[in-house]
Amino acid sequence: MATYVKDFSEGDRDQKDLLGGKGANLAEMTRLGLPVPPGFTITTEACRAFMRTGEVPAELRVEVTMALRRLEDALGRQLGDFHEPLLVSVRSGAKFSMPGMMETVLNVGLNDASVQGLAQFSGDERFAWDSYRRLIQMFGRTVLGLEGELFADALDKAKAGRGVTSDVELTADDLRVLVDTFKEIVRTETGKEFPQHPREQLDLAIVAVLQSWGTERARLYRRKERIPDDLGTAVNVCSMVFGNLGPTSGTGVAFTRNPSTGETGDYGDYLVNAQGEDVVAGIRNTLSLADLEEVDPVAYGELRQAMRRLETHYRDLCDIEFTIERGKLWMLQTRVGKRTAPAAFRIACQLVDEHLITMDEALSRVNGAQLSQLLFPQFDADGERTLLTKAMAASPGAAVGMAVFDSVTAQEWAEEGKDVILVRRETNPDDLGGMIAAVGILTARGGKTSHAAVVARGMGRTAVVGAEALDIDMVTRSFTVTGHKVHEGDVIAIDGSTGDVFLGSVPVMPSPVSTYLEEGLDVALASTDDEETRDLVMAVDRILRHADATRRLHVHANADTAEDAARARRLGAEGIGLCRTEHMFLGERRVLVERVVLATQDATRQEALDALLPLQREDFVDLLREMDGLPTTIRLLDPPLHEFLPDFTELSVKVALAEASGNVDEADVQLLAAVTRMHEANPMLGLRGVRLGLVVPGLFALQIRAICEAVAIRRVAGGDPHAEIMVPLVGSVQELRIIREEALGIMAEVGAEHGITLDLPVGVMIELPRAALTADRIAEEAQFFSFGTNDLTQTTWGFSRDDVEGAFFAQYTANGVLSVSPFETIDAKGVGRLVRIAVEEGRATRPDLTIGVCGEHGGDPESIRFFDSVGLDYVSCSPFRVPVARLEAGRASVAGPDTDAR
Amino acid sequence: MATYVKDFSEGDRDQKDLLGGKGANLAEMTRLGLPVPPGFTITTEACRAFMRTGEVPAELRVEVTMALRRLEDALGRQLGDFHEPLLVSVRSGAKFSMPGMMETVLNVGLNDASVQGLAQFSGDERFAWDSYRRLIQMFGRTVLGLEGELFADALDKAKAGRGVTSDVELTADDLRVLVDTFKEIVRTETGKEFPQHPREQLDLAIVAVLQSWGTERARLYRRKERIPDDLGTAVNVCSMVFGNLGPTSGTGVAFTRNPSTGETGDYGDYLVNAQGEDVVAGIRNTLSLADLEEVDPVAYGELRQAMRRLETHYRDLCDIEFTIERGKLWMLQTRVGKRTAPAAFRIACQLVDEHLITMDEALSRVNGAQLSQLLFPQFDADGERTLLTKAMAASPGAAVGMAVFDSVTAQEWAEEGKDVILVRRETNPDDLGGMIAAVGILTARGGKTSHAAVVARGMGRTAVVGAEALDIDMVTRSFTVTGHKVHEGDVIAIDGSTGDVFLGSVPVMPSPVSTYLEEGLDVALASTDDEETRDLVMAVDRILRHADATRRLHVHANADTAEDAARARRLGAEGIGLCRTEHMFLGERRVLVERVVLATQDATRQEALDALLPLQREDFVDLLREMDGLPTTIRLLDPPLHEFLPDFTELSVKVALAEASGNVDEADVQLLAAVTRMHEANPMLGLRGVRLGLVVPGLFALQIRAICEAVAIRRVAGGDPHAEIMVPLVGSVQELRIIREEALGIMAEVGAEHGITLDLPVGVMIELPRAALTADRIAEEAQFFSFGTNDLTQTTWGFSRDDVEGAFFAQYTANGVLSVSPFETIDAKGVGRLVRIAVEEGRATRPDLTIGVCGEHGGDPESIRFFDSVGLDYVSCSPFRVPVARLEAGRASVAGPDTDAR
Repeated sequence: MATYVKDFSEGDRDQKDLLGGKGANLAEMTRLGLPVPPGFTITTEACRAFMRTGEVPAELRVEVTMALRRLEDALGRQLGDFHEPLLVSVRSGAKFSMPGMMETVLNVGLNDASVQGLAQFSGDERFAWDSYRRLIQMFGRTVLGLEGELFADALDKAKAGRGVTSDVELTADDLRVLVDTFKEIVRTETGKEFPQHPREQLDLAIVAVLQSWGTERARLYRRKERIPDDLGTAVNVCSMVFGNLGPTSGTGVAFTRNPSTGETGDYGDYLVNAQGEDVVAGIRNTLSLADLEEVDPVAYGELRQAMRRLETHYRDLCDIEFTIERGKLWMLQTRVGKRTAPAAFRIACQLVDEHLITMDEALSRVNGAQLSQLLFPQFDADGERTLLTKAMAASPGAAVGMAVFDSVTAQEWAEEGKDVILVRRETNPDDLGGMIAAVGILTARGGKTSHAAVVARGMGRTAVVGAEALDIDMVTRSFTVTGHKVHEGDVIAIDGSTGDVFLGSVPVMPSPVSTYLEEGLDVALASTDDEETRDLVMAVDRILRHADATRRLHVHANADTAEDAARARRLGAEGIGLCRTEHMFLGERRVLVERVVLATQDATRQEALDALLPLQREDFVDLLREMDGLPTTIRLLDPPLHEFLPDFTELSVKVALAEASGNVDEADVQLLAAVTRMHEANPMLGLRGVRLGLVVPGLFALQIRAICEAVAIRRVAGGDPHAEIMVPLVGSVQELRIIREEALGIMAEVGAEHGITLDLPVGVMIELPRAALTADRIAEEAQFFSFGTNDLTQTTWGFSRDDVEGAFFAQYTANGVLSVSPFETIDAKGVGRLVRIAVEEGRATRPDLTIGVCGEHGGDPESIRFFDSVGLDYVSCSPFRVPVARLEAGRASVAGPDTDAR
Repeated sequence: MATYVKDFSEGDRDQKDLLGGKGANLAEMTRLGLPVPPGFTITTEACRAFMRTGEVPAELRVEVTMALRRLEDALGRQLGDFHEPLLVSVRSGAKFSMPGMMETVLNVGLNDASVQGLAQFSGDERFAWDSYRRLIQMFGRTVLGLEGELFADALDKAKAGRGVTSDVELTADDLRVLVDTFKEIVRTETGKEFPQHPREQLDLAIVAVLQSWGTERARLYRRKERIPDDLGTAVNVCSMVFGNLGPTSGTGVAFTRNPSTGETGDYGDYLVNAQGEDVVAGIRNTLSLADLEEVDPVAYGELRQAMRRLETHYRDLCDIEFTIERGKLWMLQTRVGKRTAPAAFRIACQLVDEHLITMDEALSRVNGAQLSQLLFPQFDADGERTLLTKAMAASPGAAVGMAVFDSVTAQEWAEEGKDVILVRRETNPDDLGGMIAAVGILTARGGKTSHAAVVARGMGRTAVVGAEALDIDMVTRSFTVTGHKVHEGDVIAIDGSTGDVFLGSVPVMPSPVSTYLEEGLDVALASTDDEETRDLVMAVDRILRHADATRRLHVHANADTAEDAARARRLGAEGIGLCRTEHMFLGERRVLVERVVLATQDATRQEALDALLPLQREDFVDLLREMDGLPTTIRLLDPPLHEFLPDFTELSVKVALAEASGNVDEADVQLLAAVTRMHEANPMLGLRGVRLGLVVPGLFALQIRAICEAVAIRRVAGGDPHAEIMVPLVGSVQELRIIREEALGIMAEVGAEHGITLDLPVGVMIELPRAALTADRIAEEAQFFSFGTNDLTQTTWGFSRDDVEGAFFAQYTANGVLSVSPFETIDAKGVGRLVRIAVEEGRATRPDLTIGVCGEHGGDPESIRFFDSVGLDYVSCSPFRVPVARLEAGRASVAGPDTDAR
């Protein structure tokens, strides 16, 4: 028994799996003795049972009855009673916060009888009828699935009929009439009466919340946030307290520190004489907490005390919902608060300085995604600009894009490759798709805790909210502000750190964190007078240095040119994990490569190869000079054959047209013949990598010789080059053996020519399932492994990024097969299993095998944790991602092995 | 000590790894007390050491000295002595026979001094000088690497100078002069004297044999026969006996049964007054053993006795080399003899009847490749034909092709897709490439044990040998026979079962074994009066029935039409393992599918789908009728998208030309736009299989409905349909879950419509590495697995059969990366490992999971043994391969698990 329901007094914050985040924290606050209205939580276990069977478990009804009775006994009131009725709120609360995703019903227990009890009890008839009106409206929309606008229109009509503009101007009688109207709406739309039985209301509300877990928009959100579908939500049934009992009542949201900048001191929004939803929805503009201190210093003092208590207890920024009922503070919710990236770094360091957490903990409180955000450029303060308005900076960053006015258009335009900024009066959960598609979000209403602000911060989108000066006209699809008219498609720019909204495009500048990473702390600090910025830079430096000191994984970079290598080194790369030699065959050299590949005579081929050698050698000399003293892994030619040949279809058309016009160019005809001969139906599965190297004589030998000569030149010049030769697309040890023998021969030759000994490590890209499955054999010949996880993902799944990433991925995300592209985050269960096999079996053959990863996953935070857990020596990523990888590698060390397999 | 050399008296036949086949059998015959000339074997261990270091191990020299001393002591003669010299032969002998591949040197020990001792000892000066002449010739060619023609020309010149045509007409003096000429050749060509020191001769000959293991042609042969390169060869040093000591001497080859037909009774070739090589090379025509009985009844009697002894001892057909030296029989070699496919079946049954072996052993004595050969059609006896000549039937079959006169041309023409028949005076090991490329081999000289005959039988090529009527002119590249002149490129036909050679093409008839398999034993026996043929058919029947009784694996067939299914069922298929539905979308239906795929509007698509439904349903009704009572696995649409669309390049050319001429067809332009939109760079890795099914609405639903309706129709008609639905290209359990839910819905609907319960199993093709790696999860939803090993090979290796099978495979076979295409025989170590993982982990989730294979590997003998060893329930192959698969499945059961991983 009692697995489906727990009283608030029974749980604690560690029971998030069972009680959801909200329930666990309500229990924790109850335990701490903070003023939480009594109530109980229906556990996620009940939701899972509901999802399995589609029905409410019979045991749940019994347990709810018992819990309700305990609640009634404790408060001495009965649900929906004619006298002093007990009313309850019914709120969802999953393990992970899903803001605005699921349903809430307040004032459950009100009916034609108890509304009078409430009037009596509260001494405020108007309040009672307003509460009843709210119940029917919320219940109608949430539980009965009616259009919200039906009720909103009726409300507007009532106000218009009375010639007033604000809800509070409606009298008790007006509201009584409105309740009848609302009940009529329910009757007309559903064919049934609004349920009068309090327990029936409660049961229906509970079912509505349980069902809200499975809605399309909730699924979409979870997929985006990688929350498993099978967790289920808890349901919190809490005795109602009222923020709308007049001017000494109100409701608010508070943060123990500024979640936008990380500044110390409390921070929040308060709405006098309002119920909870009014704040979160951002429908009315709010007061600050400082205003509250003036309005009700006693309640404010209690709140401050509770906030300090919570922050010390949770040892982190807390986010709180509270209500003041006639001067009495009630805590409705708390959780560790979401924050912007700058705030995350600054708060982590503050908490260390306040001796609340250790540096290791500080490291675990920030993440690579946040660091990435800090690297975004900002608007150039000296650039030309036309300021349209200034509003609330809700989520930092600098976004430039075309204004669009609805979510669907935003998604369509984004799919066409356009940058769009979603402009809305206010956002609601239906706008989620458009918010994901947009580069920035601008709203005319709502505060920093409005839906738009919270969701944008969560997903790292730039957002400016509450721009009241905006007059949005959906008919002409434009907005007007301070004399300017902006149509859909016009470019605007928004600054999520300042709240500025600009007309047209605005030039952007590197972020101070970028400056720090590229040019060092001193330069970055000297570049700004802004204390917040300086504090942020120092926080990043402090945490990143701790990450470097802590991490086990080395971080290398993928860099093809000396310039990229130099940049990577500045950003902290400890080597080059992947130098692709493909780019060295582009431009005017391309024709030489074409000649090598298409040559039918050895002499022609050799001539082209000879011409390429000095060019290649110089590339490598430059690269090795920049990477002096550090490992530099150079991959032999890898890309599909066709990349070096003219396009088959284009050439076919050209020749056909020439033939039709009688102007045949014999060279083209011959070229077409050659290209036809070499044409591949599936170039990704064709002659490439080591296969091309083994089939085209001299190609790999040229590259190996160029590498060896470059090393010799650098050594003779007094340098310390550490070039390593990487063979791509190996599927069998024998392929590597042949190339390795050739390489050893060339090393000996070049060594003899320069009077030195060359002993370059020769290793492989592990990018085919067979390479991973036969890693024990391959390690006999390979001195290092480097996972090419892009190709490995491609072959393990049997789809190529080029071919399936468009429509297919969209479909696959929608139907839940993929929650994230396996090209972005490593597929631990499939591709990752091959990685594990190769690591274990490769090291069994050669215990000192160096193993890294050089696919794009090397820069992905979640993937880096995986690579740390399987014991890789390094990750290699694009130079830009190096700081992120350093941070994530440090976090991985602090967190210990992550063995989650999705 | 003594690991490198073993006397013949020390070993036995089980030591083939160490002593090679020849050495082990010489030891065995010595053990049996048969007359084997004394000698010793240098072990494969020595060869492996030689291969590793490139040098003869010092210990080997010491051990050879000791063994030679033991040999000299036993015989009382000394190597190369002036009096009664001991001479030895030096022959290669690897574990697996490699006929003609490696080197042999006879008469080692002869020099200017000992030749006189041999003359005295043998009382035959001419013989002694002839032997010396042979040594220099063989040594010069084999050990010193000189052109054989240098010696052959000198010999011809000597004969011409004396006005004689036969070697035996040259006198001792002639030969003494010839020896000088030969020595002069050696001096001129090598700059050194022919080595006079006997031990130096011996050591050089041993090295030559060891080196012969590593020659290009030996490697090629091993690759073809799948013999590992690292086995090494043994070297047998055997005291010489002479078949060329006059008319009472001779040398021969014998089989204990006819290796061509399987007939009982001995069978062989004998050459009077000749040394061993003369017989094998087929240079002179030979006597039969019956002739020997007349010439030397005593020696013949001894030989017969030895043969009976050997056959009883080895319990199999033995192949023997012997020499008669002045009436005394010496056994030089024996081994279990190679045989043709008909002989294999007949001999196996004979040995059972003779109580020498069990039926299980009989089953293990034949194989699927042999059964395949028996299925080849034969020439129609009533067809029109022009007989050119009749010669020896050396390897059965009926081949029709263009005459070519050298190995290189044969290979070139074959690569162009032509059927060629290689016509040669005689073949030698250099012709191997051409023999592999040809469909048949015709030689003008040589007997049934000639190089051409032995090699052709070994590889299953049709061969006719010793067609002495052929006059081959290499200058005009033609041959003349009985008034006909046949030029290179002219078509001829050869019958390897009768020895007939025909001009032009000859119609072919099904083989009697095919008739048996398709129409049963009675029909097959009634169709022929030939006793050999009837015996063969009965032998096949007997062994195949035993295989069926023994095997654990079921055999299903891949069949897409009712006709194929019916045929498969006649051939013994116990179900359909793979019905591809692709073909059902060809022809006039293709346009409908094109419409489904390209549709941008639901209505257009649905219209096309509706039109397809009845067509699909009828296909399935027909199929299920044929397969009544047996499992019938139908795969939903699998092939790449582009197969249903017009060719992108062709259409581009068409539209470009139309535009150039101003005749634009708007429909084509729109089609091109659609095709461009859907064009994939790598269709194999694109939108296909379940991915297409999930992205194109209604496509899979149509197919599933057609299957369900077909089942319902058959059930209502009183049939017993067992359709199963197979989902292709699944990579994630979620894909299967969606399709399965859809399928369950359709089953319920169709069931309700027909008033029956439909419960069709739904399973998956496992053809992506990720499917194998996540088999535990996939088995939660899949009721069966079927490995699609073609695609699985493609993705595991990362190459597509279409793109790499040409030049690339040739190169990869040449450089030893592949010994056999992984598309032919399963790559046990890579792809096979995934199969094992999927079987183990799939069954762990669902112990009653049915698992089969439906890729082309399902019909490959070696692969079948692998699938048996990993515990599959069935293999599915093309109908034609069903009998082969039945036989191999039986053999796999008899042999027990084969766990070899190459």
